[in-house]
Amino acid sequence: MNFLHEDRLFPADIDTRAIAKRLYASIQHLPILSPHGHTDARWFAEDLAFPNPTELFILPDHYVHRMLYSQGISLEDIGLDKDATRDPQEVWRLFAAHYYLFRGTPTQMWLDHAFDELFGMTERLSAKNADLYYEAISTKLASAEFRPRALFDRFHIEVLTTTNSPLEALEHHAAIRASTWKARILPTFRPDSVVDPEFAGFRENIARLGEMTGEDTSHWQGYLRSLEQTRQRFKDLGCTATDHGHPTAGTADLNSSAAESLYGKVVAKEATAMEQELFRAQMLTEMARMSLNDGLTMQIHPGSFRNHNPFVYRRLGRDAGADIPTATDYVHALQPLLNRYGNEPSLTIILFTLDESAYSRELAPMAGHYPALRLGPPWWFFDSPEGMSRFRECTTETAGFYNTVGFNDDTRAFLSIPGRHDMARRMDCGFLGRLVAEHRLDEDEAQELAVDLTYNLARKAYKL
Amino acid sequence: MNFLHEDRLFPADIDTRAIAKRLYASIQHLPILSPHGHTDARWFAEDLAFPNPTELFILPDHYVHRMLYSQGISLEDIGLDKDATRDPQEVWRLFAAHYYLFRGTPTQMWLDHAFDELFGMTERLSAKNADLYYEAISTKLASAEFRPRALFDRFHIEVLTTTNSPLEALEHHAAIRASTWKARILPTFRPDSVVDPEFAGFRENIARLGEMTGEDTSHWQGYLRSLEQTRQRFKDLGCTATDHGHPTAGTADLNSSAAESLYGKVVAKEATAMEQELFRAQMLTEMARMSLNDGLTMQIHPGSFRNHNPFVYRRLGRDAGADIPTATDYVHALQPLLNRYGNEPSLTIILFTLDESAYSRELAPMAGHYPALRLGPPWWFFDSPEGMSRFRECTTETAGFYNTVGFNDDTRAFLSIPGRHDMARRMDCGFLGRLVAEHRLDEDEAQELAVDLTYNLARKAYKL
Amino acid sequence: MNFLHEDRLFPADIDTRAIAKRLYASIQHLPILSPHGHTDARWFAEDLAFPNPTELFILPDHYVHRMLYSQGISLEDIGLDKDATRDPQEVWRLFAAHYYLFRGTPTQMWLDHAFDELFGMTERLSAKNADLYYEAISTKLASAEFRPRALFDRFHIEVLTTTNSPLEALEHHAAIRASTWKARILPTFRPDSVVDPEFAGFRENIARLGEMTGEDTSHWQGYLRSLEQTRQRFKDLGCTATDHGHPTAGTADLNSSAAESLYGKVVAKEATAMEQELFRAQMLTEMARMSLNDGLTMQIHPGSFRNHNPFVYRRLGRDAGADIPTATDYVHALQPLLNRYGNEPSLTIILFTLDESAYSRELAPMAGHYPALRLGPPWWFFDSPEGMSRFRECTTETAGFYNTVGFNDDTRAFLSIPGRHDMARRMDCGFLGRLVAEHRLDEDEAQELAVDLTYNLARKAYKL
Repeated sequence: MNFLHEDRLFPADIDTRAIAKRLYASIQHLPILSPHGHTDARWFAEDLAFPNPTELFILPDHYVHRMLYSQGISLEDIGLDKDATRDPQEVWRLFAAHYYLFRGTPTQMWLDHAFDELFGMTERLSAKNADLYYEAISTKLASAEFRPRALFDRFHIEVLTTTNSPLEALEHHAAIRASTWKARILPTFRPDSVVDPEFAGFRENIARLGEMTGEDTSHWQGYLRSLEQTRQRFKDLGCTATDHGHPTAGTADLNSSAAESLYGKVVAKEATAMEQELFRAQMLTEMARMSLNDGLTMQIHPGSFRNHNPFVYRRLGRDAGADIPTATDYVHALQPLLNRYGNEPSLTIILFTLDESAYSRELAPMAGHYPALRLGPPWWFFDSPEGMSRFRECTTETAGFYNTVGFNDDTRAFLSIPGRHDMARRMDCGFLGRLVAEHRLDEDEAQELAVDLTYNLARKAYKL
Repeated sequence: MNFLHEDRLFPADIDTRAIAKRLYASIQHLPILSPHGHTDARWFAEDLAFPNPTELFILPDHYVHRMLYSQGISLEDIGLDKDATRDPQEVWRLFAAHYYLFRGTPTQMWLDHAFDELFGMTERLSAKNADLYYEAISTKLASAEFRPRALFDRFHIEVLTTTNSPLEALEHHAAIRASTWKARILPTFRPDSVVDPEFAGFRENIARLGEMTGEDTSHWQGYLRSLEQTRQRFKDLGCTATDHGHPTAGTADLNSSAAESLYGKVVAKEATAMEQELFRAQMLTEMARMSLNDGLTMQIHPGSFRNHNPFVYRRLGRDAGADIPTATDYVHALQPLLNRYGNEPSLTIILFTLDESAYSRELAPMAGHYPALRLGPPWWFFDSPEGMSRFRECTTETAGFYNTVGFNDDTRAFLSIPGRHDMARRMDCGFLGRLVAEHRLDEDEAQELAVDLTYNLARKAYKL
Repeated sequence: MNFLHEDRLFPADIDTRAIAKRLYASIQHLPILSPHGHTDARWFAEDLAFPNPTELFILPDHYVHRMLYSQGISLEDIGLDKDATRDPQEVWRLFAAHYYLFRGTPTQMWLDHAFDELFGMTERLSAKNADLYYEAISTKLASAEFRPRALFDRFHIEVLTTTNSPLEALEHHAAIRASTWKARILPTFRPDSVVDPEFAGFRENIARLGEMTGEDTSHWQGYLRSLEQTRQRFKDLGCTATDHGHPTAGTADLNSSAAESLYGKVVAKEATAMEQELFRAQMLTEMARMSLNDGLTMQIHPGSFRNHNPFVYRRLGRDAGADIPTATDYVHALQPLLNRYGNEPSLTIILFTLDESAYSRELAPMAGHYPALRLGPPWWFFDSPEGMSRFRECTTETAGFYNTVGFNDDTRAFLSIPGRHDMARRMDCGFLGRLVAEHRLDEDEAQELAVDLTYNLARKAYKL
């Protein structure tokens, strides 16, 4: 370590910190399980050098450009306008000059972790060392030790999962498996593009799905079979989980003929907004049914108002930092699915939220009752020290630790993976340390829990 | 104490802890006021020995079986299926083997308190000492010192209240009063079964109420008189409070003829779901009117979606751990009642919540304004260290301490009462200790407050 | 200092406190910027002595009488009934005897600050020193050093803003500017009375606005021009901001003819409740358009259910402590305005909330994306130590510090201004101190941030 402090993120109280450090020492070097993320399998299949610091750290990271944009820096200056051809080093300098905007954010902590531990930088990024940083990082990126596979091994990653559309061929996953490099890089089945009637190109997508599977997706049964087949194709490449990013947590349990008729309307573009929501709701229940059959763990990520800013959407498309959380109901929304499958101990449904008021009110009580439910880690805006603290404080007393599933890094930024997992490990050890310091837990219990939260719970919930 | 730590639940910071301990020393031994709970007066009337550990600690405690069930253990294995005849000691062993699931939960802390302080166990429960525990506890339960009355006296309980339907004869309460044992065990008037049209058997219940009171409950005025009479019958046995467990906090203020006509529809089973909700809403206002007359303190517990899991409901019935909180509005919901009675200083309405987002947004501002309103302590899922912390942090600055009413143990688990009150006392002293350490309160103020929060506020609000 | 502790409000942990104190030492004496408040410019124009302690501290402060009233003290006894002529010293004694009700509230801390620092009292207020307090304060108030202008200078206030209706002549602001006393006391444009159709006297108000501006406000274009003119009149007296206190955050973006026709309905009293809400919504977007033209910073304060208690409203009128927060949506509500103006870096819209669940869920994500948005400080019930902690904990990781705007004292209680700013400075230093102690921020960054949060951010956001 250079400018990072070895005690970072631990509680300030001296006794609590000492306990946290003991716990951390025992789990710090456990391998990384990354059961939910957005890296690109192509990187590992092709194993080419990563490009310059700007294309690595700024352009793909919506946490970064969101903050810059919020402070009045134009998309062009951030290098995001497709027609513009900003010099990457100019963009880097602008970023460095505005690095102070990230004070107190996890983004800064993740970046500092990579800058310090990976690239050996000895002082915090600022306007005055921007070029020094740029050159040092560029040089390292060109070296063999900074190729994707080398970094994967160096990071001590045991499993890395990606997130994939049913329309993807998954040729890079297949290539990795066929190679001599025995890393476990697994796809995750994310069917939004073929189960959400409001997804851009939905009808073309289901037609394409039909072609890929040899099923007639113009009718309900063929459509369901095409999904089942595709899940199997994913499983054959090691997939253990599905992921569902819906606007709400709404589920439905229509009878077969009602579902068939609804599908007909959806395909014919005759479905109202409410019927489209009903269709998404029905599809969550269908997915639970398929999971009960094929064993894929199910993840539900509801509650984001996607593409809130049409101006930015027109320029940058989806996932560009203009998705805003909304108040989310789980109790009524999930009941149809839970009535049918919630009592199945062999089914695992992991719930995430962007509405923290649901932690203690809805999510912990539900996960603390239904055998099929588990709580996903704090997600997106809440993948942060305070977010992790609130998650543990608001869920543990009702759901316990064992209805949670460990950490997700959820990232497209491959180089941030060690820093993100390290943050989660430190925060968990700090939380456990406080419970021990307050004699709400014995240290031997905390020791076991530290390993469970870091490793065992993720392995079990995601069947890794 | 054996394996419990004497400083448990106090803040880790050394100065803050020292203050908390001084505060606690002065209130630790104050008598227990338990103004809201669910123990059974029969226990104290008959004074028979409690059965085995399993029937005492596991089967009646929905906090316990909820957690076991959530981790895939079947109702049968927990000993909950009525037809099954599981050996109680087998159930105990299964519980002991899964005791780690309760790490970090108040359930574990309550149980450990009883295991350590009452039963003298010297180490934490686990698979390996399950039989030792079972036998030690069984032996003690058979002894005279573990009879209900002996424990009541040992626990230093000044008042214990139960929760009772208007259809109950209250013969056990009467028997206790008629006995030479001068304990104050008081009924609480909980009329859900006769004011909620969706309660199972509602129409039979009001017919029965009519018989019991000699009133014609087929019409509105007779119905109201039957309730007033029953409240008086409860008062005659020492009752000082009512309790209302509605799905929402909705209140209404219909004129007399509208109320009469609504009652007609309800009785005739012609009321829609919305009219049934309106009837419950009107009945809260009627109850407030009656309270203004007869002086009973009124408790409102809204916001639980009862029997969320039909599979479990069919097997176990009500109150089986499958009740899930929902987002709850108080501001609009309570306005009709408050417009009529909210400015009455002689009326006391205690509000509870399962939606913590309402603490700072709605409940503290309302209780900090209306003379009739007080805030109940953190309830159910929030009867926990973190829940108590959030309650004080989110309500004190707006409502002060003096618009709160002390602690409720709210339990069916008689043996957990000392542990629950002790937890609340420690948490309050820790909160006060932090305010003193941060010089937001002087220690003499905190000292007075510690006594008020432990004893005086409950006595005043519940008129004990 | 006399009975106040020099370390008040700092974290108890010894290392964290030491850092907080170092930070505080560097900003403690910075001048006060008060960009949002409710003092009366007349005080400074006339510079007359303040009246007795009761009229200064009790009668105008709804935080004070709200709490007394909630505990069953009548409006008459508080001295609030207009017909009653309570002896002010009697009211003061009653207040002193009930001062314990304010334990743990910011009200007590603000009052203690004034009692100690301004009036030199040496012990906490109580029944036994009530008369001593009354006389000591009365004597000082009669002295020249306690005149409004002398206090303004003593408080080291650089800018003080008031809140004003478009119908006000602003003669006191003009008089101050015309005087030789060069204090910056600036009006803020608060148009609720002429943009909210449900405001008492709305139609008379817009007629009056027409007279004042020489515009025909019976039609839409004349109405808009009259508002633009009035904004300019405010600007001429130094105004830099507008303020909007709507029941919801609803905005609309009607085309010109729809807006015109809606205005016609509103003026003709033919608008439904929903159309009145739509009109308020449209007016927020019109105000944003005007702000883009004239540069006034825009403040939106939504989410209060005004005059919840009709009994109190009939006696005391508006702003009497019976306004209760409600759950508030921002994501859908603000989208129409943001779609039109949210990407304008030259526009500044400051959002406030009374629904803390929106901090992490909606407000921080929106302010962390839209160039036009900033987060106002914790407001009203949340202008308190715990409220400030939650604000920083829930917003910083997503929106950073630089999308916030410093502190608002928001007070009518002029003498509380130093105490309120001091509380905010101490709490910010405590929060920064914790981040430094946990190595989530370096101390040089915290040092810069302390100055920014105290001074620079307010100056920039409010263009002071």
